[in-house]
Formats: sequence, C-alpha cells, structure tokens
Amino acid sequence: MNAELLVIGDEILIGQIVDTNSSWICAHLGDIGVNVTHISVVSDDTQDIKGALSLAASRSGVIIMTGGLGPTKDDVTKDALIEYFDTELVVDKDVLIHVEEIFAKYKRVMPPENMQQAEVLANAEVMFNRAGTAPGMWIKKDDIFYAVLPGVPTEMKYLMTHEVIPRLADMHGREVHVHKTILTAGIGESFLAATIAPIEAALPNYIHLAYLPTYGQVRLRLSTSEGHHYDLSELEAQVNKYADAIKALIPEYYINDTEDTLQHTLLKRTERLGYTIAAAESCTGGYFSHLVTTVPGSGQVFLGSIVSYAEAVKEAELDVKAETIERYTAVSEQTAVEMVLGVKKRLKSDYAVSITGYAGPDGGTEENPVGTVWIAVTGLSKTVSTKFLFGKRREDNIIRAATSALYMLYRLISEENL
Amino acid sequence: MNAELLVIGDEILIGQIVDTNSSWICAHLGDIGVNVTHISVVSDDTQDIKGALSLAASRSGVIIMTGGLGPTKDDVTKDALIEYFDTELVVDKDVLIHVEEIFAKYKRVMPPENMQQAEVLANAEVMFNRAGTAPGMWIKKDDIFYAVLPGVPTEMKYLMTHEVIPRLADMHGREVHVHKTILTAGIGESFLAATIAPIEAALPNYIHLAYLPTYGQVRLRLSTSEGHHYDLSELEAQVNKYADAIKALIPEYYINDTEDTLQHTLLKRTERLGYTIAAAESCTGGYFSHLVTTVPGSGQVFLGSIVSYAEAVKEAELDVKAETIERYTAVSEQTAVEMVLGVKKRLKSDYAVSITGYAGPDGGTEENPVGTVWIAVTGLSKTVSTKFLFGKRREDNIIRAATSALYMLYRLISEENL
Repeated sequence: MNAELLVIGDEILIGQIVDTNSSWICAHLGDIGVNVTHISVVSDDTQDIKGALSLAASRSGVIIMTGGLGPTKDDVTKDALIEYFDTELVVDKDVLIHVEEIFAKYKRVMPPENMQQAEVLANAEVMFNRAGTAPGMWIKKDDIFYAVLPGVPTEMKYLMTHEVIPRLADMHGREVHVHKTILTAGIGESFLAATIAPIEAALPNYIHLAYLPTYGQVRLRLSTSEGHHYDLSELEAQVNKYADAIKALIPEYYINDTEDTLQHTLLKRTERLGYTIAAAESCTGGYFSHLVTTVPGSGQVFLGSIVSYAEAVKEAELDVKAETIERYTAVSEQTAVEMVLGVKKRLKSDYAVSITGYAGPDGGTEENPVGTVWIAVTGLSKTVSTKFLFGKRREDNIIRAATSALYMLYRLISEENL
Repeated sequence: MNAELLVIGDEILIGQIVDTNSSWICAHLGDIGVNVTHISVVSDDTQDIKGALSLAASRSGVIIMTGGLGPTKDDVTKDALIEYFDTELVVDKDVLIHVEEIFAKYKRVMPPENMQQAEVLANAEVMFNRAGTAPGMWIKKDDIFYAVLPGVPTEMKYLMTHEVIPRLADMHGREVHVHKTILTAGIGESFLAATIAPIEAALPNYIHLAYLPTYGQVRLRLSTSEGHHYDLSELEAQVNKYADAIKALIPEYYINDTEDTLQHTLLKRTERLGYTIAAAESCTGGYFSHLVTTVPGSGQVFLGSIVSYAEAVKEAELDVKAETIERYTAVSEQTAVEMVLGVKKRLKSDYAVSITGYAGPDGGTEENPVGTVWIAVTGLSKTVSTKFLFGKRREDNIIRAATSALYMLYRLISEENL
C-alpha cells in the first residue's frame, strides 16, 4: 500500500522550522508495511493545497495531511478541504465539550476563535485528539483514504498512534512484511559493517539490512522486501535467525532488539538489579540527565545529578580539588574521576557517571581541542575513564558525549553483574 | 521570484533521516527575496524524479534539487536528468582531478565508482564543490533555472553559499520581500491573537501575519506578500511600524525580534547585567539546564544546577527540610521555594530558578494531578512562585515546564533591572 504526505505550513517553506513530523510518520508507516512515495510541502494557500490534494489522489491510496488546523486566520486547511470535497463544516459536540473543558481546566476564558476547533468536515469521521484541541479527521472518498492531522508534533503523534496507524494496519490487501531492529552502541557504522559482513553477505535477497546511525548508536534494521507473500511465521523465523547471528557477533555492542532506547534499556537493567545511579555533568549541561529522565519511572533508579558548569561548583558540590583543576585542567581524567567519585558519595548512589569536556565552539587547548571529552563511570568495585575526541559542533558534541556516557554506564553495570 | 525544492532520497521517505536541508535552503533563499512555494520529496526513481521536475517547471522559475548524486547504484538523479533534458554525460577534467586529489590526500585508492563523480550533464555549468566530491550543476532551460546539488548538508551548504545564492541574488526582476519575526512567551496563541486583533485587522493586504506556536512560546511573523514591487525601505518601514505596534501591546510577553531563542535572549540580558544564574530541577530532570547550555558561551552566566530527582537529594543538596516535603509534598510552593533558595545559596548565584512537579504518566494526587508543576524564581530582592497545570504527556510537560521557567526568570530579571 502506497501513501503520501501533504505537509501544510508557511513556517516550513520560509525555513523557520524543520519538518520532523514527516520522518516520524514515514518510519511508523514503514513499520506496518505502508510505503511513502512522496512528501509535498505546500503553503497555507487554498489553491496550492487543493492542487496538491488532486495530484496526491491521482497516484496514492492513502494521503496523510498535517498542519494548518489552528484557530488563527492563517490556517486554511479546512477551507481547502471544504472546496476539495465539496462539503461543509459542522460543529462536533464532543469536540466542543473537549475544547471547552481544556480551557475550563486552565481556568481561562475561551476566545471565540477556539470554537472553530470544534468544526469538522461533514464528510469526515472525527479522530478525537486527547493531546490538544484540534481534532483529526478521517475521510474516505473514491477508495482513497485521507487523514487530516494537526501539525503540532505531539498531537500528530497521538493521532497517528491511536487512530491512523490502527486503521491502516487493519486494512486488507497489505503485503506480509516483517522487520526487526537491533540497537547497538559504542561501535561506529563502518566497523559494525565490517564485523557483520559475513552475515550481510549471506542474507537472502528478500531480507534487507539497513544501517540507521545516530550519535554513537547504530540501529540495524532487518526487513523483508515488498512483494513477498511468504508465510508470516516462516518470514519471522528467517529474520530472527539472521538477527540472532548478528547479535552473537557483537556481544559487547548489542543493546536490545525491542525498539527501546539505550537509556530505557540502561534503566530497566539497573532497576532489575536494584541499583541507583547519579551523574556529574559539565559540558553536557544536563543533557545526560534529560535523556535518562525522559523515560517514565526513571525516578526508581536515577537519584539526580549535579551540573557543574562553573569550576567553583565542581569544587564545592563535587569535592573536586582546586589543585586538580589547576594542575590538570577541568577537562582531564583526574577531574572526571574526582567528579564521578564526588557525585557518587554526595548522592549516595550505587553507580555514577561524570562528563567533562570542551563542547565548543570556543575553548579547548592545543593538546585538547574542542570536542575533547573525558567520561568516567564508577560502580561496585571499579572506576573506568575514557577520553573521546568528537567534532567541532557544540550540539553534536553534547549529544555524542551524553550517549557515550549512557553506553559506558551500561557496560560497567553489565560487566559487574553478569 | 518563486522557487521550489526537489529533494531526492529514499532515506527520507523511509524515515531514516530528517530533511534538515530544506529548512536551511528556504531560510537562505528567503533572505535574498526568493520565495519557496513547494518542497517535494521523491524516491530514487527515474520516473518519479522526471515527473516531479515537469511539475515543478510548470509552476516555478527556479528549481533546486538535492540528493541522489552519490557514486552508489541507488543514486539515479543524473540518469533522470539525462532523460529529462535529453542530454548526455561528459567527464569534467577539473572535477576529475579534484576527486583524485581528495583520495590522494587521504592516501586511499579511488574506487572506480568515484570516476562517475566527474561526469556532469553536457548542458550544465559545473559548480565546483570544494566541500566534497560530487560537483553541483547549474542549468538554464526555457527560462527556468535548475540547481543540482549533493544531499550531504555540508556540501549542499557550500554550493548554495558560494554558487547558487550569488547567482540568484544577481538576477534581475526579483521582488522586494520583507519579513520580521517577534518572539513572545508566557501567553497562549489565542490570547495573543485576541490581544493584537486590532493591529491584525488594520494590516494592509500586502502584509501577512502568521502565528508560529511552540510550547509556551509563539513566534509572530510579519511578511510582505508576493507581487508587490514597492520600494524596499518603504516596505521595511511599514513592517517595522506594525511590529512596533504589536510589541507595544504586549510589553510583558515580548522577548525579541531577532530570531534568537528565549534562552539566548535570557542569557544575553543576564550577561550584559553581569549576573549569574543557577537552577534546581526536579521534574524537568536537567532539561532546563540543557536548554540554557545549548547556547555557546552560556558558561559566562550559568553556574550549574542540581537535578534533585530523589527527595533525599532535595534535602541533602538543596537544604529542603524533610518536614516541608512531609507536610506539603515535594510538589508544592513551599518545596519549590526552599529549592530555589537552596540552590542560590549553594551555587552562590545572583538569580535562580526551581522546578518541581508531576511530569507523568504516573504520580500526582487528586488535588495535584499529573501536569501540576510549581516553579519558583529568586533574584536580588524577591522570590516569586507560580503553579502551572500542563497536560498528561511527560515529554510535553518537561518542555513546557522548562520553557515557563525560562520565561519566569527572564521576567524577574527584567523587572528587577528596568
């Protein structure tokens, strides 16, 4: 089944925001075997939207539209849809109550514009939006399915997850499609590729292996190709066989095959073992802690962290000795080790990690340029520290350092609790 | 002048990567008055690329293509262009030498596929790529300009900056186009719309106002529409007049009109005043600190933070009294105030902020459900605390709480230093 995305929003065409929705939607449709063939971004202009709809309908069976559903005047998606479908707007009482309740909850008067949020196309099935005020709409016309979604990422994701994906997954005519992902960390894409080359070479032509690298992690995705109507359980057995062979080759880099994040797997394992963790962050400025605390229930394991941007804070709150910083600088193995031992003692955790480096763009020395990061981890019986040299971009360095810290902590906990 | 982007790449359509190129290109074209009306993403498929080219040529005078120029088999952009323009490939000697030099520099043997990098369309002017191996191409046909660029962001940016933008900027017949954005915080989109309604109603038909909301912030964008050949300075004066009128109506919510982020403006103002800040985070788990430390040079202002996820850490590291938590709970005005005073004292900062709440999905009480967040700020002479009730989604609550904390801190610093 082919789908295309129609993204509506001047803010994308003027370069004000990056369209992250499309990537999310494509990946999630791929997971249920729906293949996105085109993405079109058009402005908040009735004619442009109608033109793009006609074109999409001429080549795809599923059209997912995002954006332009807000209560302000520049949002014209509904106007375009009224003309395109030759229909009208009707007030949906449940949506109206929902919108009113949201304003009541925040004890605010609802501006009249927000009444419009409850107006839906007469030919649409309403997809109730518990993540916001703009409802989603599901329309079938001439055997083509249209999903109309708000552009706010959380609302789009809510409606895709709870309404659109289940509907599409239920449809008939879908090809059997199996996929499995393996998350690895601590190994670069080319080394990983070299390590698992024998398995990649042995893959049958209907199983495809993709490398999806992000900072310090590579997700491997095994998927069966389009057009193969094999038996589902046989396909699954095949994919699992190759996944297991890959896992066996990379025991120290394999994190999970559950689509969980690295931090999720770290927290689950630590919780199961009954341990707690703490962090001392310098150049990552709280990002390590943020990654950990995005996981619901992380409070069972994560006690907290001390973000010591200033040297005085390293000394006063982490018991780093002034002479250590003076002699070795704040970006050194010695400082990293004192930080990690300091935070473990202060926060009384079982495990701890520390990160100190030059995130850039300024700072660094000749010997230790921007991108140099020391990470230390400590646990039940030992302390391990590693020096990294990332790149020149601040944002990247922060993400790569935090990811490497997650991996080092995961390794230590795994090693000490075999 | 209207342009459109044609992005070629399966990796975007399967959701493997987010297309950040388009946003960059749109913003930079906008700066020279070139208006992007459509972005189309198509797969590495000759027919799809040719179809998208024909469509784009039917409606725009400039077509910028990115991607599909690599040496591997799945890159077919050149094949599609040969057919579309009915032309052939020729080897460009300068490019060939350049590609060979790059391999020589890294002391690697050049794989034969890379010879293809030196093949360019016979009807194209070569745009020399000093940032990589794939050359850019510039083609004019039937009064339409085509720029063909590699998809690697650094190479695309190099060629846009040094080749494409100078060519487009030099062309005649460009329309004058002005835009200005105003960042607001602490006020919702509909309330903002109601407040500035009189100005919106008074806008001339050639100035357009758009609302670009994100968590707790709304960016307003005033832009002049297509087809108006007014004098540039007159248009700028008009846009500035309405921008000033908007700013005058929302003095307490106006942050900047520089396209900077809220945290950037907060840090700049604090640095100019010579003050320092610190944070005590609970439910935001380090995200406030992360937002602040994404700004280069934030170390001049931001001393650090204590992320006190566990109650014991609130007590030991922030001097929150055990009886305060017992009597009022950890999510209370009293706890928030003790946290903010504790971190200010511990880290010896001039200003501080604390955040404590139920991010969800679990936790909360009947009186204070998930989404309840207390934020306190303290400065030279006073401490202010506010209770928020956000939603049910953990990720959103974290972002909204951190953004609200940035805004409260900015307000207090502004008020105390008029």
